[in-house]
Parts: sequence; structure tokens; C-alpha cells
Amino acid sequence: MKNSELLLTDLYQLTMLQGYYRHGLSAPAAFEFFVRDLPPQRRFLVAAGLEQVVEYLLEARFTDEELRWLLEEGRFAADFVDYLAQWRFSGDVDAMPEGTVFFPQEPILRVVAPIGEAQLVETRLVNLLHFQTLIAAKAARCVLAAPGKLLVDFGLRRAHGAEAGLLAARACYLAGFAGTSTVAAAAHFDIPAYGTMAHSFIQAHDDEMEAFEHFAGANPDSVVFLIDTYDTEAAAAKVVALAPRLRRRGIAVKAVRLDSGDLADHARRVRAILDEGGLTEVRIFVSGNLDEYVLRELLARNAPIDGFGVGTRLDTSADVPYLDCAYKLVEYEGQPRRKRSEGKATWPGRKQVYRRYEPAGTFAGDQVALEGEPQAGEPLLQPVIRRGRRVAPAERLEDIRERMQEQLERLPPSLRDGSVAGEYPVSLSPGLRDLAAQIDGRLPS
Amino acid sequence: MKNSELLLTDLYQLTMLQGYYRHGLSAPAAFEFFVRDLPPQRRFLVAAGLEQVVEYLLEARFTDEELRWLLEEGRFAADFVDYLAQWRFSGDVDAMPEGTVFFPQEPILRVVAPIGEAQLVETRLVNLLHFQTLIAAKAARCVLAAPGKLLVDFGLRRAHGAEAGLLAARACYLAGFAGTSTVAAAAHFDIPAYGTMAHSFIQAHDDEMEAFEHFAGANPDSVVFLIDTYDTEAAAAKVVALAPRLRRRGIAVKAVRLDSGDLADHARRVRAILDEGGLTEVRIFVSGNLDEYVLRELLARNAPIDGFGVGTRLDTSADVPYLDCAYKLVEYEGQPRRKRSEGKATWPGRKQVYRRYEPAGTFAGDQVALEGEPQAGEPLLQPVIRRGRRVAPAERLEDIRERMQEQLERLPPSLRDGSVAGEYPVSLSPGLRDLAAQIDGRLPS
Repeated sequence: MKNSELLLTDLYQLTMLQGYYRHGLSAPAAFEFFVRDLPPQRRFLVAAGLEQVVEYLLEARFTDEELRWLLEEGRFAADFVDYLAQWRFSGDVDAMPEGTVFFPQEPILRVVAPIGEAQLVETRLVNLLHFQTLIAAKAARCVLAAPGKLLVDFGLRRAHGAEAGLLAARACYLAGFAGTSTVAAAAHFDIPAYGTMAHSFIQAHDDEMEAFEHFAGANPDSVVFLIDTYDTEAAAAKVVALAPRLRRRGIAVKAVRLDSGDLADHARRVRAILDEGGLTEVRIFVSGNLDEYVLRELLARNAPIDGFGVGTRLDTSADVPYLDCAYKLVEYEGQPRRKRSEGKATWPGRKQVYRRYEPAGTFAGDQVALEGEPQAGEPLLQPVIRRGRRVAPAERLEDIRERMQEQLERLPPSLRDGSVAGEYPVSLSPGLRDLAAQIDGRLPS
Repeated sequence: MKNSELLLTDLYQLTMLQGYYRHGLSAPAAFEFFVRDLPPQRRFLVAAGLEQVVEYLLEARFTDEELRWLLEEGRFAADFVDYLAQWRFSGDVDAMPEGTVFFPQEPILRVVAPIGEAQLVETRLVNLLHFQTLIAAKAARCVLAAPGKLLVDFGLRRAHGAEAGLLAARACYLAGFAGTSTVAAAAHFDIPAYGTMAHSFIQAHDDEMEAFEHFAGANPDSVVFLIDTYDTEAAAAKVVALAPRLRRRGIAVKAVRLDSGDLADHARRVRAILDEGGLTEVRIFVSGNLDEYVLRELLARNAPIDGFGVGTRLDTSADVPYLDCAYKLVEYEGQPRRKRSEGKATWPGRKQVYRRYEPAGTFAGDQVALEGEPQAGEPLLQPVIRRGRRVAPAERLEDIRERMQEQLERLPPSLRDGSVAGEYPVSLSPGLRDLAAQIDGRLPS
């Protein structure tokens, strides 16, 4: 069957909804999405995925086919399925704009809606926000590790499914990547597409030089030769020999790509061969098991590399493949709520995050406070949806990208540099602490 | 725009295809998918995802909208885009049936098709095979760690996007999980759906007992109470008090769920409370940061736990979030091919994998040989598609699940048990080694 996104949920969301429906619980509830803790490999995170969440909330409906399936499934009563047929998201959403740097315990999104609505959307909302936020942080680390270099997302093949590949391409672009190799992401999000050639193209020819000529003739505007199929330096010499012939046909060699061996050593030798052959304008692009750690190492070795194709470890966020994030009830029927489960207690009430800045614009510290509690600093959560309608227009990717760039520039230096330990000060407001203590006093035991 | 799956590819697949098209390279090519090396945390892998690959290959077409986009994109000539409009997969596929255990250097799938066809599908084919294979292995480790226990996939929310959640649910079910919490996977693949309740349902009531009653009344056939929202043992006592009242209404409490704290300690105390209250038939189900390592530890501590909801670390394969897999050209125009890139050399020629067994049925060792090279043992790659048509019918999930169960039972004990080191013998045939040496002698340098 073809699913709408509403069945992209956990079964318990539907059984709980049946409980709320059956017992008439429909008062407004406030849920907040936040990350509990930073893994040791991360010093900051970046909010991403809001646009996909908004589209999901505004368009979510049960299809007729799904409603039939739910009826036949056996757990759900006919009157409840009739109610589901009318289900729409009619609530409010406040969120940090995409590209905003954030820290643990800071809500980046709040939903206020009748409890059955706010609850049903939890699973997909977390699924969308978690993944792009995860990748945006990883991609930001690559950008900070290789300032001024051309970075391209190469990760689709080992991303976890198609949607992961598409959304990773988007998150990388927001973080400052030049583009992606994923054609569907280029088509869908209007992200610049980049590509070179694979070893199989070379191998399908008896002669490496002939393979280069065939590729250049067919793709005169994007000539990047992969030169490590057999012998990297020998292939670089072939490029030197071929380039004048191509030039006479009006074809310029843009770059060569290295994909194996010691990339810094090869890059140095290839740079020398190209330069001696007069190809000083031909760039060196590398790929293969890259991530921010390898980028830093290559650049620390002064490797003459102009661009990087970063794939698997980026699109899977391999060193941190998930974040400890949650979407938790903080208020129901006007009453702040709090869960006290061991090691997983949550802060009650609707919250706002206030950020203070140094005179030069660097982030100085955040405070998580109750909404409406008077605070210094810039409030980071902004209205996005009111009564089921979008009140903040969809943002252009370029605008989000610019914001994220600016945010990364305003990070305290200790958080920007992977080699220096640093923790960013996030405090909880007196109002929030008082409220939690007050609730603990009246919680059922 | 709405994409078909054919734009789910890397840009270079299209530029290379334009090269093949422009220069008339259309001879048959053989590509093989294999895993280069096992990460230290894995002793075996399990083939999964073939059905999705077959559906993709049989249905792949460019839509009119995509063709227009390709024309406007600028890199592709009009006659080439006309050629793409006719593009169909017309080749052959041989593969290991899903659920087959395999090891590094063993091809689990081979495509033989005109080179432009075999090449274009690489990215999505790898994307589909890699992910389910990754998750099937992780899920198999959970099943081996908790024999006889009820295992349920809880991972959608932190899976990498929607497709990852759906396909992870499928891979877990193949591995022996009882089902999934993901409703869309239940609807799409007909996998049993499982669910309990969330903390927010409890928190939305002023009284925990009232929350339990509301849930049970609305979902009389699937009563599982989450008991760790405030005080786990106090909530277990409430379940004991409530159960007789529910029984009079014909409602049976099936289980309680624990989601925080020391799960083994809580399970022991809760088991005692339930047993003393006469609820010996009520099962204990746990969740929260589980994976095969935690399952082994909990069961080694003799925790009285009947079932496990395994989520994030399973659906992201958190300890091994990707495999070092490849889809490589091994033959073109009848000539075996080999890439020699440093550290990434490939074995040439079309291959078959032969498996030998101990008299009791346990796997004794595999040999990777050239197709047609006489070998002892059972050949594992089987015909799936011939000339673009399916020759092996789609398999029922139940049948794959049974095969996988049997395969796991036939694993040498040293590979089944996570605590014992063991390596499985995979050898390369003399014919394969001779061919590689022969090619190295005539490779361009």
C-alpha cells in the first residue's frame, strides 16, 4: 500500500490517541523537542529540518487506504477511525530558525495543540528533526576543519536509505558545502550538483588515456579526471599530455580526483607534475573515507588539496550516529508537567531560550527560561505555525545557509576548533528551577 | 518536483553514461556487490534488501519531469536525454537469497547488463543493499544475544529518515524480531505491530491509576502499562490493585514496560510485586538504550525480562553505522577487469561463492571461485533476473525469516557467541588467483 506520512508513527501513538479520544482528553498540550546531552565528540549542534517538519504538519492526513487498513487491523474502533479521517494538525509551533546553533537542554521546537494532535506527530517529527540536526552538526565540523575549501557531499550510496541521502545533502548545503553528488537532491532542493567519474569508466576502456578523452568529449563543461585507477602519478602525466589537445578543442580540464593511498603524498606529487606541465589552474580534488578528522590532518600536513568529496562518514554521522534527543510533554491543560524517570527527568513548562552576545557578536552564554519570564538576551524560538497555518514563510536555502555561516562565525573559538576543549555556558532560569521544585512537591507518588 | 528513483543516483553516473552513449560503449559489463572487510564488531553479515533492489531495477524509468529537469540542467545533450527517456534495465541479476549469511570478499549480488545500465543503477542499488544488510546483521546479533525472548523494533524516531525506519523494521523481522512499532512498516510489509504507551499519556492524567484505566478501557486487547514515569515499584503495586477490576470487565493486563533506571534490578523487584499480587502471567518488557551488548548483560544477570524494545542503536547500527562495501566492475566485453588502486584492489571476473558444510550442517568454510570453475560445495548466488525479467519469484517474508533462522543455527559456535573470538575460513580459488595475476601482467601502466 502507499502510505501518507501519518502511518510513519509508532503504534502506541495510535493506541494512546484512541485512549484520549475515548475519554475525551483534548485539552491543549505543549511538547518540546530538545537534546539531553552532547556526545563527547560534539561541542555544539545546529538546528535543521524545520522546513520538512512544517510541510509534514501542514499536509498530514490519513488516506482512505490507510483508514481501511486501520479498521481491518483490529485494534481500532470504527468511530475512532471516523475521527481519524477528520484528523488535521490545528496547533501552534515555535522553533529556532534552521541554521541556529544550539546546546543541550535547549528546546529547538515547541508544539502546542490538542494532546492527540501533538502526540500523534511525535515520531515523524523527531525522525525529521533528529537526522538533519545530526548531519548539519557533522557537516559544520567539516566546514570548520577545511575553511575556504570546496566541500561536496558524496554520501548517498551508504546513507541509510533514500530519504537520508536527500536530507543529508540538504543539511550539508546549509552548513556551507558547495553541493552534492546526489542528483535527486539537486533536482528537489535546487542544490548545486557535482560529479567526476568512477573507476569503472576507466576500466571499461583498454586505455586510460582513451577513457579520459571519451569522458572529456562527452562532458566538455565538467572535466574532472579520476587518476588513481592504476598508477596515480602516471595518470597525472597523461593529463599533462592530454590537456593541450583538449584545449585546442575548447575543453578545459578543471580538476583531477584522487581516491586512494596517502592522499597528502599523492596530492603533493600530482601538484608538482601538473605545475611542471603548465597545468597550474587544474585543481586537486580528493575523496575516500574522509571526515573532519581526516580533513584537519590533511590540511595540517599542508597537502595541496583544493576540494574534498565527503561521503559515508558524513551521511551516517559515523562517529555519532544518533543524538540523545526527546520530544516531551511539558504542559497539559495549562498545568506544567514533568517526568521524573531515573536519568531521564525533564524540565516542566513552556520555555524560551535567551542568548547573550559579546560586544563583538560572539555567543556569550544562553539561558533556558520559562516563556514570559523576563530575561536579558535574544529569544531564539520564533512563531512558525499558528492554528495550523504557517505564519513564518518558508525560507530559501541560501538564507538559511547564510544564517548558519554567521552562527558558526559567532561561535566562541574554543568550540570552533576541534583540538581545544571548551564548554558553552547554558543556565536554567530561577523561574524554571522554582517551577520544577514546586511540581515535585505535588507529583503523585 | 516528484522524483522517480532514477535520479537517486550520483551525478557522475549520468555524466559517465553520457560518455558511454556518446562513444557507443554498450557492451555487457559485470558488476559485483561485496563487502571488503568486516569491522571488528562483526563476525558475519546477512544478505538483505534484494527484494527492494529487484523492484527498483524492474520499475526504474525517468519521468517526463525528470527528463525536462535534465535538459534544463545544462550538462546533458538533447539526444542523450532522448536516449534516457527509453532507458530500461534489460540485464541479468544473480544474488544470494535474502537471509543468507555471508563474509567479506564474497559477492552477494552480480549485475550483468550493457555498461550504461549496470552503471547507472549503482548508487541506489548500493544504498538499498547496504542498509538492510547492515541492519540484518545487527538484528541477528540481538536475536543471538536473547534467545527465546520477544524482540520488537522501536527505532523509527531516530532512524535516518523514513525509509531507514521502514527498511530497518523489515530487516529486523527477517532476523527473527517479533515485530515493529512502526505502523507504516506493519501496513506496507505485513509485519506484526507492537506498542505500549508513552510517558506523556501518564502525565496527561493527574493520576497514574486513572491513566492506566483509561488506556486499558480504550485498548482492551493490548494492555501494556508503562510503569516508570514516577516510581516504578509503586506503579507495579497499582497494576496489582487494578488488574482484578479490569479482569471483571474482561480485560487482561498483558505486560508492564520499564524504560529507565537499572532495568535488571527494577525487573526483579517488579516481578516479585506482580507475582505476590497473583499476576504471574503478566510479562515484563523493557526498553531504553538497548542493543545486543546490553541484552547479553541483562540476561547474564538473570533479569526476569520477557521482551525487549530495541530502538535507536539498532536502527542506526550505532556501533557500526556503515559497511565497507562496493559495487565494482569485474568484466567488460567478456574481458575480466581489475582495479588496482592502493588498498582498494578488486578481484576480477564473474564469481560464485561455494559453501561447504560439516556433517551436522554447520558451515565449514567458503570458497570464492570463478563462475564455472569446478568446485565442491553449495553455490550461493542464484539467478534472480534474466533479460530484465524476474525469474525467481518474490519471496514471502516468512520464508526469508525461516531461512535466516536456519542460517544462524548453522553458524559455527565461535561466530554465534559475541564473547568468543572466531574467524570464518573464506578462501579464493586457484582460478581466481591465476586470473588476477594474468591481468596484472597486461594492465596498462
